[in-house]
Amino acid sequence: MNGAHAVARTLLNSGVEVCFANPGTSELHFVAALDDEPDLRAVPCLFEGVATGAADGYGRMTGRPAATLLHLGPGLGNGLANLHNARRAGTPVVNLVGDHATFHKKYDAPLESDVDALARTVSGWVRRCEDPATVGGDVAEAVAAATGAPGQVATVLLPADVSWSDGARSAPPIAARRPTAVPARTVATVAGTLRTGEPAALLLGGAATREPALSTAGRIAAATGARLLCETFPARLERGAGLPAVERLGYLAEGAMAQLDDVRHLVLVGARAPVSFFAHPGLPSQLVPDGCQVHTLATAADDISAALGDLADAVAVDVSAVLQPAARPASPTGTLTAESAAMAIGALLPEGAIVVDEANTSGLWLPGATAGAPRHDWLTLTGGAIGQGLPLAAGAAVACPDRPVLCLEADGSAMYTLSALWTHAREGLDITTVIFANGSYAILNMESQRLGTRAGGPAHRDLLDLTRPGLDFVALARGMGVPASRATTAEEFTDRLREAFAEPGPHLIEAVVPALF
Amino acid sequence: MNGAHAVARTLLNSGVEVCFANPGTSELHFVAALDDEPDLRAVPCLFEGVATGAADGYGRMTGRPAATLLHLGPGLGNGLANLHNARRAGTPVVNLVGDHATFHKKYDAPLESDVDALARTVSGWVRRCEDPATVGGDVAEAVAAATGAPGQVATVLLPADVSWSDGARSAPPIAARRPTAVPARTVATVAGTLRTGEPAALLLGGAATREPALSTAGRIAAATGARLLCETFPARLERGAGLPAVERLGYLAEGAMAQLDDVRHLVLVGARAPVSFFAHPGLPSQLVPDGCQVHTLATAADDISAALGDLADAVAVDVSAVLQPAARPASPTGTLTAESAAMAIGALLPEGAIVVDEANTSGLWLPGATAGAPRHDWLTLTGGAIGQGLPLAAGAAVACPDRPVLCLEADGSAMYTLSALWTHAREGLDITTVIFANGSYAILNMESQRLGTRAGGPAHRDLLDLTRPGLDFVALARGMGVPASRATTAEEFTDRLREAFAEPGPHLIEAVVPALF
Repeated sequence: MNGAHAVARTLLNSGVEVCFANPGTSELHFVAALDDEPDLRAVPCLFEGVATGAADGYGRMTGRPAATLLHLGPGLGNGLANLHNARRAGTPVVNLVGDHATFHKKYDAPLESDVDALARTVSGWVRRCEDPATVGGDVAEAVAAATGAPGQVATVLLPADVSWSDGARSAPPIAARRPTAVPARTVATVAGTLRTGEPAALLLGGAATREPALSTAGRIAAATGARLLCETFPARLERGAGLPAVERLGYLAEGAMAQLDDVRHLVLVGARAPVSFFAHPGLPSQLVPDGCQVHTLATAADDISAALGDLADAVAVDVSAVLQPAARPASPTGTLTAESAAMAIGALLPEGAIVVDEANTSGLWLPGATAGAPRHDWLTLTGGAIGQGLPLAAGAAVACPDRPVLCLEADGSAMYTLSALWTHAREGLDITTVIFANGSYAILNMESQRLGTRAGGPAHRDLLDLTRPGLDFVALARGMGVPASRATTAEEFTDRLREAFAEPGPHLIEAVVPALF
Repeated sequence: MNGAHAVARTLLNSGVEVCFANPGTSELHFVAALDDEPDLRAVPCLFEGVATGAADGYGRMTGRPAATLLHLGPGLGNGLANLHNARRAGTPVVNLVGDHATFHKKYDAPLESDVDALARTVSGWVRRCEDPATVGGDVAEAVAAATGAPGQVATVLLPADVSWSDGARSAPPIAARRPTAVPARTVATVAGTLRTGEPAALLLGGAATREPALSTAGRIAAATGARLLCETFPARLERGAGLPAVERLGYLAEGAMAQLDDVRHLVLVGARAPVSFFAHPGLPSQLVPDGCQVHTLATAADDISAALGDLADAVAVDVSAVLQPAARPASPTGTLTAESAAMAIGALLPEGAIVVDEANTSGLWLPGATAGAPRHDWLTLTGGAIGQGLPLAAGAAVACPDRPVLCLEADGSAMYTLSALWTHAREGLDITTVIFANGSYAILNMESQRLGTRAGGPAHRDLLDLTRPGLDFVALARGMGVPASRATTAEEFTDRLREAFAEPGPHLIEAVVPALF
């Protein structure tokens, strides 16, 4: 068996079932190996950032890693932004990067670069395979490293000659690092703090934003009066009717500071202490208010569910969580705006939907409008690297073929990884993409107002405007095989959305909305 | 003056006139500074790889750097592949990357990453600005570092607070490193070698593939019988009627080895000794045949024109170069193929055209069909990182607004950085893009035939095919404001090409051709 076959077989042995792939010459032996392993599904991507973003979406929804397949340093470079988001999400990803043959690297051929250095910037674990005899074990270790709590990017650098040489064999799975148990003393300390009745909040992150931890947190909140907050950009927040409502920390420092203003005890549950997304002159980086004590119940690497369970046993026996009641907004009429679009989404969101949210400024009303919709998952831009939404949706749809995916995408952000639409079409994924077409990088207009840099001069106008020429997302989507339509009124948008949800496969709706800034 | 203004003013002082920009929040003070420096043209790009590829094209055509404007580590990540190509081309680029405020980095906010490590992988020079008082000098040094022979990527990491803080001032230009003079002894040794009459070839790279060095090399070849070869992927090859014809080394090791088979003396002139693009089982990495001596007349950092001049004075007094006669193929008729498309291009290529070649397998007949066309420049995929063509064309067109640009682009490669078309439209650039739509990653089919991995199985078929669904480049181009048409016969293609060359501004022609592999 050659090295490539050992890699493919070991991935399968270890439970990896999907490979989001954008191969080149140095990966062709692995492509051939995939042909002999039909249970390892190869999903073609036209750009590496699509492959890495899809692996992130898949990992968030399954808790298990997909593999990527990337081509040398430049291919990894193209995939870095969405690996950065995956790193921030704590998503398990086996990032498989082909490289020049071991004996070829010293010749500094045109595609040679410091791929190891690139890999280290996004990976919690990196292994350069040197020998077909050990490549199976390398890959088994990679899957374990990716999967162990709290999940991370594990990069395998696979030289072409290790792939093509015989003498390899597949390896059995290796047990992943289990979440660390939280000491009883830590739980008791937090319990004592919450029992004081001083204003407190639980800040949820990682597994704490998902069931069953979330409902346990809801019981604790109900029993102690602590508020339920979560990180600004949770990897995967379960929400909707019948679940405890969680308030996301605001994106702007001012907003987050206002949310935390009266909190005297901030209990971290899989989250880190909140910091400002960007620094601003005159605003603090650290958002915890003076006089607020920070307590860590559990880090992302800890057994969050068990820690919350122990805490609930201490403070919330026989207390039920306050659950979000079912409620939908009325179908909107009239002008299509970010607000009326959110109402339409709230009115129609299907049970079990997976919402991928890269709506940016146009997403302002979405949390409110969908709070009481049937239960769903909300996936966000964990690392702030835009161009995540369309690829993430692809991965989520591959992971959960029986659930509808709603991809909410800002026009500017969509253009970074637009070719993900082709993968939506290629795989027949049940994804409804809404492009919020406001014709600008509106978030930068907002930020420049805050920073006081908005002079209205030509450079500012030219660099933040998307209307000269305008982007025709209907044409762009059709050009990649995705049925598409444009909506300019709330009624049209509602109709198009209903149709898209009713019909399987990918659809795109260009929602023409005014920019908020 | 704040730091951002000092950066902008210093760029202008140092002769940098264009900034290919994809800014984010941490770059907004620099955007505001651009508003006060209207001579520093800001060109909007919808993706960082467009900005970096455009800077490469601009630098190749002017010999002077453009600036980029990128947003933190993920933005630099998205720009890395085309910076890799620029690095291999020896293109001067001032790669300006905004970063978090100095005091904010330690908080590890969501967009924080090891941007310094990323920068080092593609840059010959990296400077992290720490203080507004010194940022002007930092940028002057960066321009000098980028521009000095042979040209390189110089990265400036610009923290947000260095941009927004006052106390900065602009700096005067700093003299760039000049090319190193080649010792007379080296020239004499090479002259002696060429005078032996043993089979010899000059392998041209860097400045040697451009005038006036190229014609001097042609005189040496005519006088000594040495062949004129150049690197497989020259950054910029001047060619056409009235210039010496130069034979490019083949992409495949077998082909390059055949070209070099009878060479006993290989004289490097701004080029490195040839190595195989990829390693293949059983083929050597190093392509210089046994029994062939390699001599270095000049490296890329040397004064190549002067060295060639000295060598011509020694061996080619009163000898004229053999020049390529003017000749165009007849306009083709019938089926549109890669070959007939090349004939049409050869028949119509305008005087002074800049040809950007990322046609890959569909480009096989282009060098022959255009050899006798009016004088033009040929820009190639120096680093092998696909997704270069459309951005490179944008930069070349900004650099040379009075010259027509012909961008020859493979369908698969086009999809990596397709949003460059929007910049073509936005800036009204005179670029004719031909998409060779063969519906596959044909080069990988070719490579898998060579490697013996083409099993025809489902993974191979799925990962190398672009027809399910097909890509409609006419729709895609129109979606970004570029007029577009499709050609399915040689006559149609010829007509569309003629029309596109006749009309200013961007055009795209989807040339539907069969895949060669």
